[in-house]
Amino acid sequence: MPEPGPRVGIAGLGLIGASLALALRESAHAAAIHGWDRDAAIGERAACSGVIDRACADLAQLRRDVDVLVIAVPTLAAASLLRELLAAGEAGASLPIITDVASVKGPLRDVAAAADPALAARFVPGHPIAGSERSGLAAADATLFREHRVILTPLAATDAKALAVVTAMWEAAGAVVETLAVDEHDAVLAATSHLPHVLAFALVDALARSERSDDIFRFAAGGFRDFTRIASSDPVMWRDVTVANAPALLEVIDDFTRRLADLRGAVADGNAAALESTFRHAKAARDEFSQDLSGRMRRASETGG
Amino acid sequence: MPEPGPRVGIAGLGLIGASLALALRESAHAAAIHGWDRDAAIGERAACSGVIDRACADLAQLRRDVDVLVIAVPTLAAASLLRELLAAGEAGASLPIITDVASVKGPLRDVAAAADPALAARFVPGHPIAGSERSGLAAADATLFREHRVILTPLAATDAKALAVVTAMWEAAGAVVETLAVDEHDAVLAATSHLPHVLAFALVDALARSERSDDIFRFAAGGFRDFTRIASSDPVMWRDVTVANAPALLEVIDDFTRRLADLRGAVADGNAAALESTFRHAKAARDEFSQDLSGRMRRASETGG
Repeated sequence: MPEPGPRVGIAGLGLIGASLALALRESAHAAAIHGWDRDAAIGERAACSGVIDRACADLAQLRRDVDVLVIAVPTLAAASLLRELLAAGEAGASLPIITDVASVKGPLRDVAAAADPALAARFVPGHPIAGSERSGLAAADATLFREHRVILTPLAATDAKALAVVTAMWEAAGAVVETLAVDEHDAVLAATSHLPHVLAFALVDALARSERSDDIFRFAAGGFRDFTRIASSDPVMWRDVTVANAPALLEVIDDFTRRLADLRGAVADGNAAALESTFRHAKAARDEFSQDLSGRMRRASETGG
Repeated sequence: MPEPGPRVGIAGLGLIGASLALALRESAHAAAIHGWDRDAAIGERAACSGVIDRACADLAQLRRDVDVLVIAVPTLAAASLLRELLAAGEAGASLPIITDVASVKGPLRDVAAAADPALAARFVPGHPIAGSERSGLAAADATLFREHRVILTPLAATDAKALAVVTAMWEAAGAVVETLAVDEHDAVLAATSHLPHVLAFALVDALARSERSDDIFRFAAGGFRDFTRIASSDPVMWRDVTVANAPALLEVIDDFTRRLADLRGAVADGNAAALESTFRHAKAARDEFSQDLSGRMRRASETGG
């Protein structure tokens, strides 16, 4: 008989937390799945619909009942839950292995760095690169992570066994696990995700304030819709991400602003050769990325069930 | 018996020109459809496959054989073909009604302004807001313009009868025809199309030049793919558009750069309230636009055959 899997606890039953619960249930990886949500009604609903086995009354109960605890709330709230868990450890409670799903890893690293290293050893920071325009328990999807990347950013203090347990959990959910240093993670995500969101928000805001905004939105079409889709994202989540990742985000904003100023100069000078060269370079890089991504998505659908 | 429709000539048998030919054929609007392409092999192929009735040997023959001539080539080439047609008129040839499909109207207005007003009267500048990532004759689609907007930008010299004939032609192709002044058109398109392309090209170029570009493209996902799709557009076409629409483009680049600098300041100051307020404003405008566009597209599919 195989060794029973870990009891997994999920704090925060939104899209990511509930999808992880469903994926672990489908793969029979966890011996039990407990859940807790700040909104008790969501915990009840998740238990009644079978997304989790049992809803816990509070975070302390969740901590006591599980082997691995996944903090599945947004960045700033995640740092505050981690602080609460480590404080319980410092008060003598035994801690499960702890991981999280926040988009920015710096604030969680800082919380762990302020704790006793023996406790910080239990913490494995993580970030699944998956999501949806939909959100909440109702949008939960057992296949959300399949062939998607999960980036773990182990700290110097992180215990190797804890890292292995969290890696195995995400692999059971169908994900491809990779590791990065915290600062590298935050710099890469600033470039691929946080900067594009800021640009999309800034563009739509600028156009909405324009004196000809009525005509602008009236004549915009499909290309504009795709380009600005991420400007329909949750303003509160993105406020927190931009605040939490400010240093890395400022660096990529400044880098982008310099490139845009170069292009502006080429437009002003009618420098057709410089414009064409930049556009060619960008198209080549984007076409290559797009092929790689299509390959990843094809593999995901081939392994789908 | 109804009056026979106009003989339509199409100069340039790429995606737009060939799709218009197919749409006019389907609606039985034109008495005949003649075509010409700089690449004679494309003209032959269009005639053999029945996209057009007959391929003309040169632009002069096309001009002589039709009642309405559509210049369906990119912006800078369109200005040069228009100049050639007006010069033939000045040399005594009789001119058909002339229209075009270029993305920037200023250069065509300037060419017409330099001609005899009696000849310029035959010219109706136009721009169908439709396209595809695919291009060329092989991508032609009779439904490309259905429920899409076509913006006509009649000049002071434009004859009212010519405007009515071009309007009827686009309506026969299924489009919704609107008129704008040339400068308003170029300003609106700079905002909704040309600026987003420049931002997408600048972003991908900046990231490709980054020292961590390998990790950046490796961890980028679906949101990044949508945001950067337009950076896969044709570099030569976009070089010409940015050169041709430089004044309006510079204005919206500068406006955008100011808004981005404001947001950068809010990130640097940790001004969460300012960030949230901008993100909320942008999301509201983008959600409203998206609903309007969905309504337009639903109507297009309902009228589809």
